[in-house]
Amino acid sequence: MSSIISLTTDFGLSDPYVAAVKGSILAINPDATIVDISHSIPPQDIERGAFVLACAFPYFPAGSIHVAVVDPGVGSERRALAVSSPAGVFIGPDDGILSAALPDTARDAVEGHGAVSVSLPADIRAFALSDSRFHRAPVSPTFHARDIFAPVAARISLGVLPSEFGPEVKEVTALAPFRAEVGDDGTLRGRIVHLDRFGNLVTDVRADQLRGPDVEVEIAGRLIAGLSRTYADSAGLSALIGSCGFLEIAFSGGSAETELGAQTGDAVVVRLR
Amino acid sequence: MSSIISLTTDFGLSDPYVAAVKGSILAINPDATIVDISHSIPPQDIERGAFVLACAFPYFPAGSIHVAVVDPGVGSERRALAVSSPAGVFIGPDDGILSAALPDTARDAVEGHGAVSVSLPADIRAFALSDSRFHRAPVSPTFHARDIFAPVAARISLGVLPSEFGPEVKEVTALAPFRAEVGDDGTLRGRIVHLDRFGNLVTDVRADQLRGPDVEVEIAGRLIAGLSRTYADSAGLSALIGSCGFLEIAFSGGSAETELGAQTGDAVVVRLR
Amino acid sequence: MSSIISLTTDFGLSDPYVAAVKGSILAINPDATIVDISHSIPPQDIERGAFVLACAFPYFPAGSIHVAVVDPGVGSERRALAVSSPAGVFIGPDDGILSAALPDTARDAVEGHGAVSVSLPADIRAFALSDSRFHRAPVSPTFHARDIFAPVAARISLGVLPSEFGPEVKEVTALAPFRAEVGDDGTLRGRIVHLDRFGNLVTDVRADQLRGPDVEVEIAGRLIAGLSRTYADSAGLSALIGSCGFLEIAFSGGSAETELGAQTGDAVVVRLR
Repeated sequence: MSSIISLTTDFGLSDPYVAAVKGSILAINPDATIVDISHSIPPQDIERGAFVLACAFPYFPAGSIHVAVVDPGVGSERRALAVSSPAGVFIGPDDGILSAALPDTARDAVEGHGAVSVSLPADIRAFALSDSRFHRAPVSPTFHARDIFAPVAARISLGVLPSEFGPEVKEVTALAPFRAEVGDDGTLRGRIVHLDRFGNLVTDVRADQLRGPDVEVEIAGRLIAGLSRTYADSAGLSALIGSCGFLEIAFSGGSAETELGAQTGDAVVVRLR
Repeated sequence: MSSIISLTTDFGLSDPYVAAVKGSILAINPDATIVDISHSIPPQDIERGAFVLACAFPYFPAGSIHVAVVDPGVGSERRALAVSSPAGVFIGPDDGILSAALPDTARDAVEGHGAVSVSLPADIRAFALSDSRFHRAPVSPTFHARDIFAPVAARISLGVLPSEFGPEVKEVTALAPFRAEVGDDGTLRGRIVHLDRFGNLVTDVRADQLRGPDVEVEIAGRLIAGLSRTYADSAGLSALIGSCGFLEIAFSGGSAETELGAQTGDAVVVRLR
Repeated sequence: MSSIISLTTDFGLSDPYVAAVKGSILAINPDATIVDISHSIPPQDIERGAFVLACAFPYFPAGSIHVAVVDPGVGSERRALAVSSPAGVFIGPDDGILSAALPDTARDAVEGHGAVSVSLPADIRAFALSDSRFHRAPVSPTFHARDIFAPVAARISLGVLPSEFGPEVKEVTALAPFRAEVGDDGTLRGRIVHLDRFGNLVTDVRADQLRGPDVEVEIAGRLIAGLSRTYADSAGLSALIGSCGFLEIAFSGGSAETELGAQTGDAVVVRLR
């Protein structure tokens, strides 16, 4: 098992929370390699956490351990899980944040922007983290990342099997795949799912939903003809396939977010020509 | 000795300062494991630095090395110290930031919010970092973290004893314990010591100062009856014991900081019922 | 070769980009020690990136690998380079960000604030990263940090020679040295190149351009007589040599940036007395 443990949370970097999680890992496995994916997920925005994790984890070595905690229900009855897939082990609350562990095919049944329980495919197993012998004692009802997820991740990095931590579960809470809706005429109706630091608008229109660069993109009342290949290709607004594999809207030498007054959730329409 | 070195500073993450400290450590011990606790302490806010460090370091392995630098007096005559305790070694300026290394009993004599010199208990020893052979040369008068604290921490992680760096000192500058005042009628008078990313108000009212959940909390002219167990338990304002062991005020689905217009230093009163 | 890899980018910490770069490194060398220098370089501000890198890398062990990516031309014809110097290997786009790898003497020919091609001194060699066998496949045209620079850095940390990645180049794009202009009367005319978290104004007036502390500094219409040694030395505005070796303007107990309404690029004049 890898000793690489990634962290994706909404904890921010000003508070002691992320460091307490890291300390809790290192207290069990001082040789773990801990990598921050992001701690700047907007507070309690489970979908954004799942998106950021999904954009980053595929570049980690197979077998890495990914702890993902956006956890408004911490301390309630929501389950804590370890989800073991060919890509690695994903650890966190069962509130949808672990969607990144599941292939789109397992999530196709989810409609809209809620989180629902889905069945696991054959190559993915999930276990409830219910055995308190593997937790810190006492467990704070407000900080399972430090007291449950971190020690479990550390023990998995030392070779403890996910099945040791509690009973297997056959269903996991998941979000719908990040993918635009396809209309009868082939028109794609998506939305902005992430605004990046450069003011690029990352949408849920997937590269494989476009059938080539001959498209017209409508966003915030503006039309963009065709796809650019790089940010440097065009003046003004442009549309291109970003590094996560989704359609992005960019603004040359500036911020598309500012130029368009855009927000996450805003609609984007793509007409194939 | 552990090779885990934590860093708590007010340097922020935009400037080259934190990286220069890490480079300075790795130049001496390339195998050190460096963990950020926080670099977002408000500039020169020694008390906040001590609080954040105190909330995070107990989760690290015993023997870890904690470098803490909020240092408005850098380059002046204030001492530089290594404080060795059963929990680990704490390194930084002698301006109160190292309070976290001292038990509350050693700090009980401190009154108000200043920093005063206190005697060390038997199981804690402190040494002035005066031997320039262990510093980078030349030492910048404005950057002891890079030129004194980092190389000393790196050498301790390699097994050099704290006593090697300079003469033992018997007193260390400390802040008062984080603890509310207790009135004659048992009423607790505390204050907000930290606002976290979620807008929770962390106070200095300690869990062990409450004798159960039957309390009334008054803050910003609002009354909160009883303690909640988790953030998800209540609608609106709630009071609960946070993960650092202090009374927190939260606002369900939002920010108590925004809801109450609260700031650090604001008063909180708890009446036991 | 060192397994220490530093990262300097304008990617910020909210997006998945930095983590994807780290995953891409660890997928090739899971034992690499990755250190963030800064990811808060203002978007596309090549000069600021070069400045921050120059202030931090000298404190790293010789032989460290420094990946620096402020890359508005990503995916265009600009070259990708590995620059090998006695200090280490610098990897990034050939747009000026790698200036830190070159001594001032190699950059003296550059005038003004543009980036021009300069010849390399004898002890520095540079190689184009053109051999796609060493890149991730496919390469995103918008994310060479993840798909080219990270895997190259990881392979160099494993001992692959820079010369393996592509043909040697004899010229590298560089910025002018950070250094004030010297007038006929010895007056130094510089500018603010960085505002730090404390509101200190870091200028391009180098310590070795002053011939002692007997100077008069003019900034934003204010005059400062003489140099202070530390931030704690003076009340109000002061001038001192900061930890990067440049003249800084500070404001005791506050922010010189706020006090003076200062911005990067603003002029500073130093008269030697």
